Amino acid sequence: MPELSSEELQEIYTFAVQLGKDAGDLLMSFARARWSDNRYSVQAVVEKDSAVDIVTKADEDVEAFIKTSIEKRFPTHKFIGEETYSKGASRDYLIGDDPTWCIDPLDGTVNYTHLFPMFCVSIGFVLNGKPTIGVINAPFLNQRFSACKGQGAWLNETQRLPLVRNPIPPMPAQAPGGCVFSCEWGKDRKDRPDGNMHRKVESFVNMAAEVGGRGGRGGMVHGIRSLGSATLDLAYIAMGSFDIWWEGGCWEWDVSAGIAIVEEAGGLITTANPPEDYQHVPIEDVQLGSRLYLAIRPAGPSATETGRQTQERVVREVWYRVRNLDYNRPGV
Amino acid sequence: MPELSSEELQEIYTFAVQLGKDAGDLLMSFARARWSDNRYSVQAVVEKDSAVDIVTKADEDVEAFIKTSIEKRFPTHKFIGEETYSKGASRDYLIGDDPTWCIDPLDGTVNYTHLFPMFCVSIGFVLNGKPTIGVINAPFLNQRFSACKGQGAWLNETQRLPLVRNPIPPMPAQAPGGCVFSCEWGKDRKDRPDGNMHRKVESFVNMAAEVGGRGGRGGMVHGIRSLGSATLDLAYIAMGSFDIWWEGGCWEWDVSAGIAIVEEAGGLITTANPPEDYQHVPIEDVQLGSRLYLAIRPAGPSATETGRQTQERVVREVWYRVRNLDYNRPGV
Repeated sequence: MPELSSEELQEIYTFAVQLGKDAGDLLMSFARARWSDNRYSVQAVVEKDSAVDIVTKADEDVEAFIKTSIEKRFPTHKFIGEETYSKGASRDYLIGDDPTWCIDPLDGTVNYTHLFPMFCVSIGFVLNGKPTIGVINAPFLNQRFSACKGQGAWLNETQRLPLVRNPIPPMPAQAPGGCVFSCEWGKDRKDRPDGNMHRKVESFVNMAAEVGGRGGRGGMVHGIRSLGSATLDLAYIAMGSFDIWWEGGCWEWDVSAGIAIVEEAGGLITTANPPEDYQHVPIEDVQLGSRLYLAIRPAGPSATETGRQTQERVVREVWYRVRNLDYNRPGV
Repeated sequence: MPELSSEELQEIYTFAVQLGKDAGDLLMSFARARWSDNRYSVQAVVEKDSAVDIVTKADEDVEAFIKTSIEKRFPTHKFIGEETYSKGASRDYLIGDDPTWCIDPLDGTVNYTHLFPMFCVSIGFVLNGKPTIGVINAPFLNQRFSACKGQGAWLNETQRLPLVRNPIPPMPAQAPGGCVFSCEWGKDRKDRPDGNMHRKVESFVNMAAEVGGRGGRGGMVHGIRSLGSATLDLAYIAMGSFDIWWEGGCWEWDVSAGIAIVEEAGGLITTANPPEDYQHVPIEDVQLGSRLYLAIRPAGPSATETGRQTQERVVREVWYRVRNLDYNRPGV
């Protein structure tokens, strides 16, 4: 397995943080152009393609900028980007042990198209198959999130994450009660009882409903949020603002930076789909390319449990309330 | 009916913008205290009260600051604030023709409790029963929204709203296809088939589902967003980022500033509940205290319709897909 010295890792991290800033500036300059130049108007973009799967020119240009910058600085590293991948024929999982950049030039494309500020650039660096460095920049929010294994997770390079940390609170005793639950409707809107939309909605309603409702599955979460960006969902899990994020269907470039940041902040990420013996199975780290994700915010100990125990308790409470989602891929 | 000169109105507007900045700073200083002082930790706040209806100390202190500032500067004006009102026994609608400030010191309380940045202070000034000035400050986002009747709507006092305005695009021809639909799950989570939660979810699913699905009601919206702040939902309607916001259950202090800003930006706001002859009735302006709101973003003309016609078309498309919500109040 390839090894990097701590100096090499630090060099890559410093480069990634600056790359995130520059790419975010570029993304924002395209956005600003759209409110002074009609060629980039929301209407023009929406009508050029199908209603939900829009790829803007910004997407392609920012990916090219990131790819070129990485190739120049680290010519031996591998590169997987959303745009490049989407144009290929294969849907295989391509990340091995080699140093690999896994990036999404624009996550939250629908938001970007409509100029809703919840969009970002996502830059992940994966080593030995594990997300090791993550940089997320949401330029319209002026919020940047970053982490490198062993160095903590940060907001705008200065504020350590999670925000509340003296001490970091445990997951609530009554969880999912008291929790902010983050989830996305996604693009699969087929009106079939067994389709992903109905599986998701049934799960959302279980999490939302009063305790005692839904045949005992009511979770009475504190709030339900849908931002339209998997990457920013993970960033707010790392910040401690969201307690639970449950999602299927996104790809490794949507989550590689976010996973690095969440794990470095002390969060837990496992699979969205409940295993058969979900109350007792050991809870395993998520597979990066699995397309099924359940993230729990960083948590400290309570009087009776370790922080990890409070997180695992919440994982099982979520698994009790959600349906299996139907996403898969070759090679994972 | 009371009249104000344009100089008086300008004086009030200038005061309101500064008040919004100061109140937002105060709100943010309480938030920052929570990530350095355990007495204000998320856990402490969540456990002190019921899971969904938390009132923080910040709420009360910021309202007191706003109230005192207004009383000092405009002693003859009336004042309605969320905190003050909630402590009273009456749920009557109290806004008449007199100059009245209608404010929410903290909208998005659940977000604030969890330190998710989508919270804000909302300052509305209502004259002759109509929202006339609105100031919304989301200090953790560094985004301020403001408007005064006749002077346009603004982001951070410098960027006119909506953002895309050369020209302002019409609502999409295939709407609600192509639209970002903003909605909230709210606090009423009773698991009754005819309760508000199920009425809302059925409506959300209609808006989300593929065209042709849901017995012809599938709207295939471009995206569904839930921020947990009615005030910011309206701010992003004014910005043009959200196309449709549909909600029941919030109160006049949640929406008075937002309505002023949306209307001044060129948006349309009417009732959430479909009238009986919803395809043909004239579309009336919303009643401020009705607790039922449907907002459509600012829109310009298409080749065949005026901007207003494109908005009214979307109102009827939404009414076709949503159920009546069960919120009411005395006096409206």
